Order: sequence, then structure tokens, then C-alpha cells
Amino acid sequence: MDRIVMKFGGTSVATLERIRNVVARVKRETEAGNEVAVVVSAMAGVTNQLVEWCQNLSPLHDAREYDTVVSTGEQVTTGLLAIALQEAGVDARSWQGWQIPVRTDPAHGKARIEAIQGAELVRRMRSGQVAVVAGFQGIGADNRITTLGRGGSDTSAVALAAALRADRCDIYTDVDGVYTTDPRIVAKARKLSKIAYEEMLELASVGAKVLQTRSVELAMKERVRVQVLSSFADLPGTLVVDEDEIVEKEIVTGIAYTRDDAKVTVRRVPDRPGIAAAVFGALAAEHVNVDMIVQNIAADGTTDMTFTVAQADLPRARAALDRAQTQIGFAEILTDPDVAKISVVGVGMRSHPGVANTMFRTLAERGINIQVISTSEIKVSVLIAAEYTELAVRALHTAYGLDGT
Amino acid sequence: MDRIVMKFGGTSVATLERIRNVVARVKRETEAGNEVAVVVSAMAGVTNQLVEWCQNLSPLHDAREYDTVVSTGEQVTTGLLAIALQEAGVDARSWQGWQIPVRTDPAHGKARIEAIQGAELVRRMRSGQVAVVAGFQGIGADNRITTLGRGGSDTSAVALAAALRADRCDIYTDVDGVYTTDPRIVAKARKLSKIAYEEMLELASVGAKVLQTRSVELAMKERVRVQVLSSFADLPGTLVVDEDEIVEKEIVTGIAYTRDDAKVTVRRVPDRPGIAAAVFGALAAEHVNVDMIVQNIAADGTTDMTFTVAQADLPRARAALDRAQTQIGFAEILTDPDVAKISVVGVGMRSHPGVANTMFRTLAERGINIQVISTSEIKVSVLIAAEYTELAVRALHTAYGLDGT
Repeated sequence: MDRIVMKFGGTSVATLERIRNVVARVKRETEAGNEVAVVVSAMAGVTNQLVEWCQNLSPLHDAREYDTVVSTGEQVTTGLLAIALQEAGVDARSWQGWQIPVRTDPAHGKARIEAIQGAELVRRMRSGQVAVVAGFQGIGADNRITTLGRGGSDTSAVALAAALRADRCDIYTDVDGVYTTDPRIVAKARKLSKIAYEEMLELASVGAKVLQTRSVELAMKERVRVQVLSSFADLPGTLVVDEDEIVEKEIVTGIAYTRDDAKVTVRRVPDRPGIAAAVFGALAAEHVNVDMIVQNIAADGTTDMTFTVAQADLPRARAALDRAQTQIGFAEILTDPDVAKISVVGVGMRSHPGVANTMFRTLAERGINIQVISTSEIKVSVLIAAEYTELAVRALHTAYGLDGT
Repeated sequence: MDRIVMKFGGTSVATLERIRNVVARVKRETEAGNEVAVVVSAMAGVTNQLVEWCQNLSPLHDAREYDTVVSTGEQVTTGLLAIALQEAGVDARSWQGWQIPVRTDPAHGKARIEAIQGAELVRRMRSGQVAVVAGFQGIGADNRITTLGRGGSDTSAVALAAALRADRCDIYTDVDGVYTTDPRIVAKARKLSKIAYEEMLELASVGAKVLQTRSVELAMKERVRVQVLSSFADLPGTLVVDEDEIVEKEIVTGIAYTRDDAKVTVRRVPDRPGIAAAVFGALAAEHVNVDMIVQNIAADGTTDMTFTVAQADLPRARAALDRAQTQIGFAEILTDPDVAKISVVGVGMRSHPGVANTMFRTLAERGINIQVISTSEIKVSVLIAAEYTELAVRALHTAYGLDGT
């Protein structure tokens, strides 16, 4: 008998029909004798409509009122699911963030959970009642509703699982697990039965949009066993767990890619101390995040600096650097949005040197030029021309022995 | 400088455009130096959609979950209106029932307000902040959201006005006041500048659907001055006040009609003690409300009983009587849904005899047969054939001197 938290996203509760489908899944767990809490998102499309209304009335709206408006989406789903569960003979009741309560910091619109008082939920779950909990929302010290920011329901589910000391947090979504890479690009991509938190974190932040990054960080910190699985197909999913739980570690677990970055090269920057601080300080002042950075060896007293920013930030980045041109003293700025970042991820690479070399060799064999390289303990990323994305991902998938049958 | 509660119904906040119109009206009051609380309904159509979802999932749904779902409609409006007010430079914040709190009894789906803690609202209103309050909702002793039943926002507004000791409760709606009768039938109907609570109560319950009956009862009990006025036109409305405030009392204030009733005649009932209790007991057991009742003089040991029920209850009434036929011992049941109840209402008739006689004479002159009569201290009602409704209302409107120019 386990205590589990089940989380269903917006597409999984988009219609009454799908809510009834959720009931079937919950009932299967309760009939197996498990104690169940369900965390739900708003019905697909609802949150967007509410956000649009707020923005229409005032582009710079009060975040407290925004939270009041958008949190209703999850509230509706909790009530409807509780009704549908009861209709199917499953004891259930809805819980809003303020009722539990789910205490958050006061950062309305992007609040962080500080504490969840789960005692009453546990008491009721022990007596067989399913707790249907509104994701994405909490309550601040000012007794007003807060929301966690878009996609926050994953974080709600993991935080609730931690507070309830649940054996498992099942995230039901519209994909059926975490794959070695994007199955739309590589037909031979395999679903992983297990993946380590650190790997999931790298994959989540480099383009595999299965779980919200914050929820994975929290799961890692609180050691919550997370399972990603499909709302619609009856298939085993992927367990996101501690590295120690994975007996047969692959050297490389997955290949991720993103085409959302742009490359910026600042040409002929004076090669003197403090120049990097001047360039990146100008960008930070405009809240532009910089990702991969490379600096060429200096020649004739100047150097070239290349880095990537989110494509959406490119105009702001360019404007910030232009304003700082006389201060920094560079010759020109080159930008290229047609780039892709390809990353190979795996906790096994800590103990296996040569992973990066396999990557470079594989890409070289296909004639793919590497523009920027960055590495972390469990990841190697390269920037290449966007047109080579599929070719690179497929070649690397094969080179690291990830192809399924 | 007054303290006022302004209430806007669903049609008045149906779109963002109309919410901006509400802002203009609120701003006019705050700029005049008044302290303002605004009570809002859900945007038109929203509540119906939410109710439909609940019923679709389970016809006999948990009223607590129903309240959780439907109360979101008002919550959305409060947040949107607060945002729109702030955008127009008016300090404002939203308040849900549980935040104030508005304490109700535990009758989910049809709760009654027990207490409103208005001190914090008053403090903020004094400092110039507009309180935007969700109508229709409160919180029960179990810390769960309750709703007051359909149309409950009028009651919310009046209860809030009482709790805040407001000088006035302005109910903005899609009509511009209370008329001497339905202007769609009588072109010469006049808008009343003032009407007494008791009169409004009679008019509300006999077919003039301007204010919810419960809200008028509460206004009368708490002596809240209510003003009914249009959201869309800039016209003076109708004040609903204590009888003593009305200096020039009309004998008859208004003429109401309803075609929602049906007539039932139970033929040849044995004329013995307890027979009325047997007939109406059978109906009460099926929760059928009986309105006008008349019993003929007995002949040959039997009598005929005639009464009215809501047309929607007619099948249930008929079935209940059929089941009790052998016990009661009547000969047959005749039903007629083609009837109209016409009522003349006015506090002045207490001191003016002959009001009923004017009614009977006027109808007789038009050849309209009176089927049933019932009277109260400030009302005379008659049942006539439905086809004469307009003729009767027009004739009475003229006979009592109510025609405008």
C-alpha cells in the first residue's frame, strides 16, 4: 500500500470526457489500496483566456489581482473532478491552496512554496478520501491567493508529495515518458525506464519539455520519486529518481536540442582586464540571460567574444550593447539566429572520459562545424548551424548506442 | 460624503467593455468623495456553463463541490474589475467571501448570510480604497465556500450595505428602475421615484423581476436604502425605502402580473372537517407550493376546491392528488394552465377602502371574469383567463390613475 500524488495537466482535464478518464485512473489506485492525492491544472485553454483578459484591461496589472483571476481555473477543475470521483463511488473532496494551506512567499505571479500543512489531508487520505488539490496556487502572508507561475502545477505536485511523505509522485501528461531524444526526430528513440534527477534537470532545461525545471529541482532536493507517464495510453512511464537507484548507468542517457537560442559575436573587443564584466554587465542590466560563452585568443590587442542568448532577447541584447559601444570599445556586433544547441547528458560521463571526444568526432565525420562548446559535469553542449539539427541528433543517438530496435 | 455599496449584475459585467463602463460609474462616486464598495456577479453566461458541467458529471452532485465550482465566476469578475479600476487610477482590491469573511450557514448551494466582518473594509474604504467584493458567495463553518443560490448577489449587496452601515445600496441592472407596471404592456407606465419595501416585496414576488425577494426582505429588516438603476443609461432610478420616507403615498403603487401559475380545481370533495388538510397535505408532501385558494359553498354534502400552483409543479400536483384520491374521495381534477394572476399593490390601501371594488368593477366593465380572489393588507390579486392579461393590466393602470403622460 503506497501513498501517491497523481498530477494531471491541462490537456488531461480539458473536457468532461477527459475528467472521467482521470477518474478511472484514480479509481484504479484507490482500489489497489493506495492513499491518493490528485493535483490538477486548469482545463486546457482556460488560463490563457483569463491571462488575456487581465492583459487586455491593463498591460501592467496588479499581480495580486492577476492571481485572484487565474487561480480560478484550477479551482473549477478540483470541484469538477471531486464531483466526478464521487459519482464513480470514490470518496473525494476538493482543496484550494488557502484551505490546506499551501503557504508561499509574497511574490505574486511567480511565488515559491514555503510550507504545506498536510496533516489533515493525510488523516483523510488514511480514511480513504481522495484529496483533490488545486495546483499552481497557494496563499501568501497577506491572506491573498498567490500563483506559482506558468507550469507551476508540476511543482505543486512535487511539493505536496514531499509534504505528505508520498511514496511516489506520478505526473500524467500528454507524452508517455522521457525519451533518449525527441522521437519526432529520431524514430529509434527509446523511452527511459529510469533517469537521474540531475539528468532530468539538464534535459528539462535544454529542450525536453516534459517537466517544469523547478519541479525537478525540488524533487531532487526533497528526494521525491517522480514518475512521468501518459494520461491517455496505458504504458509504463519513466521514473525520475536518485542516481543511486539506477543500477546500470548509461554513459549518455539522452540527447537534447533547442533552436530557441541566437548567437552573438562582439568583434574586436580590447583585450584588457574587466572587459568581460563590461560586456556581460551591460546585458545583465537589461535582464538578458547569457548561456554559452567563448572568447578567442587575443591578436593585435583585441579579441572576439561569442555567446548565446534566447532568441526573444536578441533585440534587447543588441540594443544594450549598442548603447555601451563607446564604453566597451568594440568594432561591431554579428548576430546569427540560425543556430541549434545540441547537448549529450548522462551521469555516467563523470567516470568515463572521452564522451566529448566522441561527440566532436561524430559531428566532424558528418561535416558539421562546431561554433561554441560548453561542458558541465554531466553534459556536453555544442552550438551548430540550425539546418544540421536533425542530422546531428540522429548521428549522436547512434554513436552513443542509444538506438532502440 | 456618503458610504455606498454598488452592485452590478451579470449583464453589467458581461464583457471587458462593460467592465470598463462599471469603472466609469465607480470613479464618478469616488471622485464625488464617496466611500465605495462594489459587489459583482459572474460575467453573464459563466455561471450557467459551470452549473451545466456539474450537472453533466453528476445530476446529484455534492453541493459543496458545486459551490467550489460556481463561486469562481464572481472571483474572476472581482479581479478583473480591480485591475480595470487601478488602470483608471482608482485604488481598489478584490475580496472573496472567505477573505472578508462573509459567514453563512452550512446550507451549501442556498446558504444564508449570518455575519459579515466589515471593519477592515471600512478602514480601507475610509482611506480611499474601493472594495471589490464577490457577490453570491460566503464561507461556512467548515472553512468551505458556500453560495447563496441563484440571484444571491442582490442579497450579498444588501447584507454588505447593512454590515458597513452604508448610506445607500445601488443595484445597477438592465432596467432603469421600478415601474408602475410592465412598460412592454403599458406604454404609459411610469417609473417610480420611490417605493416602500413592502410594496417592492409584493411586486418582486408577483412578477416584477427587478430585485431578488430575499434581498428586499433583508433590506426591509435592516432598513437599507436600496436604489435600483440602469447600468447603461444615465437616469435617476427608483429608491426602495421605508414607508415613512414616502410623503405622498399613492393608494395603488403598481400593477403586477404573472402567467407562471396554473389553476387546479378538485371537484366534489366531501364537505367534512379536515378535508382541506388532506388535500393540501398531499401537495405539501410533494413540496408543491399552493398560492391562491378558494372553496365553494357546499351543496349536497360536497364542495369544489380551487387553487393555483406554479405551472412547473402542475404534473407533480396532479400525481400527488391522484394518489390520494381514494383517501380524499373527490370526483375529478380539472386543471387550467391558461390563467394569469393580476395584482394591485400599494401601502396606501391600508387606509383607503374600496381599492378591491375598483378592481372588480374595472374588470367587469371589460367583460373579464374573475376566477379566484386573494387579498393581503397591501395587495389584491385576481386570477383571470391569460388571454385578458394585457387588457386587464392596461385598464387597471388607468383606473388607479397611474398613467403617465
